[in-house]
Formats: sequence, structure tokens, C-alpha cells
Amino acid sequence: MLLRLLFVVHLLLAIPAPVLAADPLPSWNDGRAKQAILKFVRAATDQDSPHFVKPGERIATFDNDGTLWVEKPVYTQVVFALDRVRELAPRHPEWKTEQPFKTLLEAPNDAALADFSIQDFAKIVADTHTGITTSEFSQIVCHWLQAAQHPRFDRPYTELVYQPMLEVLSYLRASGFKTYIVTRGGQDFVRVFSDRIYGIPAGQVIGSAGKTAYEYDADGQPILVKQPEVFLIDDKQGKPEGIHLLIGQKPHAAFGNSTGDQQMLEWTQSGGRPQLMMLVHHDDAQREYAYGPDSKVGTFSKALMDEARERGWVVISMKNDWKRIFAFEELSAGE
Amino acid sequence: MLLRLLFVVHLLLAIPAPVLAADPLPSWNDGRAKQAILKFVRAATDQDSPHFVKPGERIATFDNDGTLWVEKPVYTQVVFALDRVRELAPRHPEWKTEQPFKTLLEAPNDAALADFSIQDFAKIVADTHTGITTSEFSQIVCHWLQAAQHPRFDRPYTELVYQPMLEVLSYLRASGFKTYIVTRGGQDFVRVFSDRIYGIPAGQVIGSAGKTAYEYDADGQPILVKQPEVFLIDDKQGKPEGIHLLIGQKPHAAFGNSTGDQQMLEWTQSGGRPQLMMLVHHDDAQREYAYGPDSKVGTFSKALMDEARERGWVVISMKNDWKRIFAFEELSAGE
Repeated sequence: MLLRLLFVVHLLLAIPAPVLAADPLPSWNDGRAKQAILKFVRAATDQDSPHFVKPGERIATFDNDGTLWVEKPVYTQVVFALDRVRELAPRHPEWKTEQPFKTLLEAPNDAALADFSIQDFAKIVADTHTGITTSEFSQIVCHWLQAAQHPRFDRPYTELVYQPMLEVLSYLRASGFKTYIVTRGGQDFVRVFSDRIYGIPAGQVIGSAGKTAYEYDADGQPILVKQPEVFLIDDKQGKPEGIHLLIGQKPHAAFGNSTGDQQMLEWTQSGGRPQLMMLVHHDDAQREYAYGPDSKVGTFSKALMDEARERGWVVISMKNDWKRIFAFEELSAGE
Repeated sequence: MLLRLLFVVHLLLAIPAPVLAADPLPSWNDGRAKQAILKFVRAATDQDSPHFVKPGERIATFDNDGTLWVEKPVYTQVVFALDRVRELAPRHPEWKTEQPFKTLLEAPNDAALADFSIQDFAKIVADTHTGITTSEFSQIVCHWLQAAQHPRFDRPYTELVYQPMLEVLSYLRASGFKTYIVTRGGQDFVRVFSDRIYGIPAGQVIGSAGKTAYEYDADGQPILVKQPEVFLIDDKQGKPEGIHLLIGQKPHAAFGNSTGDQQMLEWTQSGGRPQLMMLVHHDDAQREYAYGPDSKVGTFSKALMDEARERGWVVISMKNDWKRIFAFEELSAGE
């Protein structure tokens, strides 16, 4: 009886305890970046610390492309949109002569993509992501994600998430933080996979969004139809604006990787509160990619690097700070 | 030793259990409305029920004015806006000749208010709620709420919340639901008090919203300045649109009290999922107010009542279903 009771006590006590006991960031090398995260979280959760953050105010925001998953050779949503163009082309004979569709359909390769502008992409999104219901759109994205493969890694895009960042997400949540995605990518696009791959529910995804229109279908059932009018471009100054619209509170931690994240990090840092600002720097051509100021995708300008140094933002070196980049990599021996 | 162990086991086992043991809705009379809530929640949380709802999908939305707190004789935010007009009037000599300000400043009483249109109110909001930072606005609202008193109840507006609805909010949250406010009122206005009086954090408040602009103040600190351009009018079809924008999932339960909530309830009911739609009907002139199809504030039209009957939405009678309306009322003897 006593032994059985002891066993029950052991079981009951064992449930909540060990979450934070082991190293919460096993894929990180010990260094300034890892220490900055650990130090911030310990202080934020320590009532006796001057950097304590009340549970209701523990908010952390993450850019998506290039911060949580691969954005090279081109943003995943761009690949999706181009696949949509090809799929819808038979229904749009006018695209044979209309740009940017003409070029795309004639030369659907990396060269054509390289010359693409943000205006071209906006036009493609307006023509391929709208006029359908929100649930139709989710299904289309869902099916596409199941079939699409990254050209270099030959894996689904949803496997190309950074294991060290998944650990940061889990560690922050285990420490009472609410984790949000704040992305220039389409809100409806990212919501399809955010819960499954990041544990972030749809309501905690802030992204670029078009208007929707409430209508009734032929059976009188209500539907929301995606409209071509833009509601929010969640990039640069749009990030703090989007954070205000959807969260209404300032984050205490923010993670990005490009010039589009500058304002989000500034906003997080303002007001003299406990705070952590980090930027992922892609400097690992072997295991992932190496790019910076000259890249059209995920530009990390010299001005951003200077601002990071000046303001004490921590730059994460993928090469030096991360033991592994993807969950499917083996950890090297002895680790 | 054995006794102490038993005691520890008892303590450990006792922690999560008793939350739902007692009547979760003590301010509700037993009747169709109370039973509908209990039945819905029991099924939604019972894995063996065909009406089980997965934890991540447990979302419930609540209108605010007239559903969670008093909206008579006029919406609280209208009173706030009019007080702002009077406060700002010395800085706006042009208001002496400009409508609707002229009428308001000359006859700031119920009679003047009665003739007010939604366009008038929009103009007042555009002129009094903008050109200041989001944090200045919060502080103004916060101070106003501390001082303002309801003309009939002589209490702060934040005390005029419906105790039975607070119990529904708590009961749903204890059952794993995420509770959201979906209000025509200003998002930034409601967020000032939502956490304190309803336990609903800012990020779970969906309301009408204007644009903001990310700027830097004289010290180079980032600020968000409220703009006069409207972003979202969260009323009627704007409610499902706002729900999609901020939550990205369909609610399983929705509570309203007026024609502005019709589309939110339709949207909640669509798609053949477990669902609960309820409408608060103000039929208690003695303890609160009685109004319906002819009221300009919180209109409960005949068409809405017909739709509720047809679709099986549950109409809550404040008079018959609620033992008490406000927390400050005594429960009648024997209860």
C-alpha cells in the first residue's frame, strides 16, 4: 500500500516538473545568443527580478520567412502563387498576353523569378488568391503544401523549419509567453500550417490580409469571399500597426531576420520595459543559405546591422549559434 | 508517514477538480437558457459525445454593449465621446458653428442625443479619438472610466456588467474555451477595461478600428498615432469579417443582443458543427431596461426574433432567466 501510494505521489508530482529542468535550447551552441534568451526568460519569470514581466504581458512576436522557416531561393508563398497561376492558366486566356503572367507562363524558372517585383507579386496574389471563399483557400493551400517540395532539400516546405527556433517557441510558451507570428506573408496562407508546425493557433498569426465579404451561397449558407482589396500589408511599419490591431499590447520579445522587421524590433524595445530583440543572420551556405545586404529575398542591410549593434539587438549566426538547423539533421557526435 | 502521504495525494488530486463541481451559473434561474448553456458545454467537453469540440477549436464570441454590460440610455462610448467634445471645445472654436458639435455644445442632454445619427457619431469619433498616440488614448479612456457615472445607477460604467454573463465567460474558460469580445464599439476603447472587468485580454477584443501610423516622437521614440481613416466597422457583416481577420477560426458559441449580431450568429451556426447561439433580450424595466424593435440603441427587431425562432437560437429573458443582473444586487432570499 505504501509503495503504491508512493508511486502515485511520484506520478502526480512528475507531471508538471521536468519541462524546464533540462536544457530548453539543446540545438543552440553556448554563446551570446543562447545566453541572451536564457537570461531574458529567467528574469521575465522571476518575481524578484527588476526585469520581471507579468504573465498577462508576456508576448513574443516572430517573423516567419527566414526567421522560422526557409525563405530561399524565394518565399514559399511566391512558389504557391506561381503554381496557382499555372493551374488557373487554362481558365485565363488573357494571361498569354498580360504581364506578369505572360513571362511566367513562358519561362517558369528561376531566371523569370529573379526579375520579379513586389508589384508583380501583388498582382498575382490579387488574381489568384481572391474570388474564392476563405475555406476554399485554406483547402487549396493545404493540398499544395502536401505535394510541394523544396527544390534544394527535396522535402515539404513545412519540414524546413528551424529546429533552434522551435525550441525558442516552446521555451517561451513553457515560461508563460504567448507566441505570435508577425509576417509579411499572407495571414490566411500562414494560418493553414502555423498550428501544426509551430504550435501557434490561427488567432496568433498576424500577416498581410485582404478584405473579405460576408455573403450567402446558393444554399443560403454564409460564406466569406476573399476580395482583391488590401487590408493590411504587414511589413516594416505595418508590423507594429498590425501588432496593435491584433494584439493591442507591446511585445517583450521580437525575432526577425530582415529590414522588414526593423520597426517591429524598435517598437518592442521602446518604453523602457524588459525586452529581447534578435535577428537571425543567414551565414551558413553549407547547411542552409548565406545572404545579406544584396539579397532581394530577406534583405539584411548594412543599416540594419548597424542599428542592431547600436541598439544592442542580438544577431544570431546560423553557422556559429546553431548546432543543427533542421530537425531531420543528425546532431554531430558528442552533442 | 502514511497519513501525511495520503494528505499530499489528496492535495494533489484536489487541485484541478472542484472548479466545475458546483453550479457554474448560480445567477441563472433554471430554464431553457441555462440548460442550453450547460448542455452545450457538457457535450463540447465530453470526448464521447458527437458534439465534442477539440480544445484548440473552443472559441466563443460575445458582443459587448447590451450583451455584457448596459447600453442604455446610450452606448457608453458615446457618452465618453461627448465628454471629449466638451473637454476639447475650447481648442476648437469652429465647433460653435459646425454640426453636430454645435447642437451638442448648446444642448448636451438626452434630447440632443436622441436625434443623433451614426454619421454624427462617426464624425465625433474621427475628430476626438484621433491625432493622439494609442497609449495617450488608453490613458484618457482609463481616467474617464474612473470618474464617469451612469446617470441611472450612479455607479461607474465598469460595474454595470451582467453577473450572469460573467458566469458564462468563466464557465466557458474553465471548460477550455477562448472567450472573445466582438463589438461595434471601438477596439481601443474596449481594450482599456476588457481584461479587468471580463478577464478578456486585449488580443481577444475585436472591435471597430481606425488605422494607426507608425511614427517617431521628438525624442526618436516610436509611437503609433491614431488616424481618422476607418479600418473596420465591426458590426453586422463586419462581425464575421472581423472574426476571420482576428481569430481565423469559426466560433462554436456566440452571444449577442441586437440586429448587429445577426451575421455573427449565422456564421457561428454554419457548417454543421456543435454550436450555441444566444440573444440577450432586455425585458426587465425594473432591474435594468426593457426595449426591443423600436429602440435606436440595441435594436432587437421582429425579423431578428423570427430568425431566432426559426434557427433555434436561444433568447435569454433578463427578467425570467436571471436571478440577478448585477454583482452588487443581493440575491433574493432562499437562493
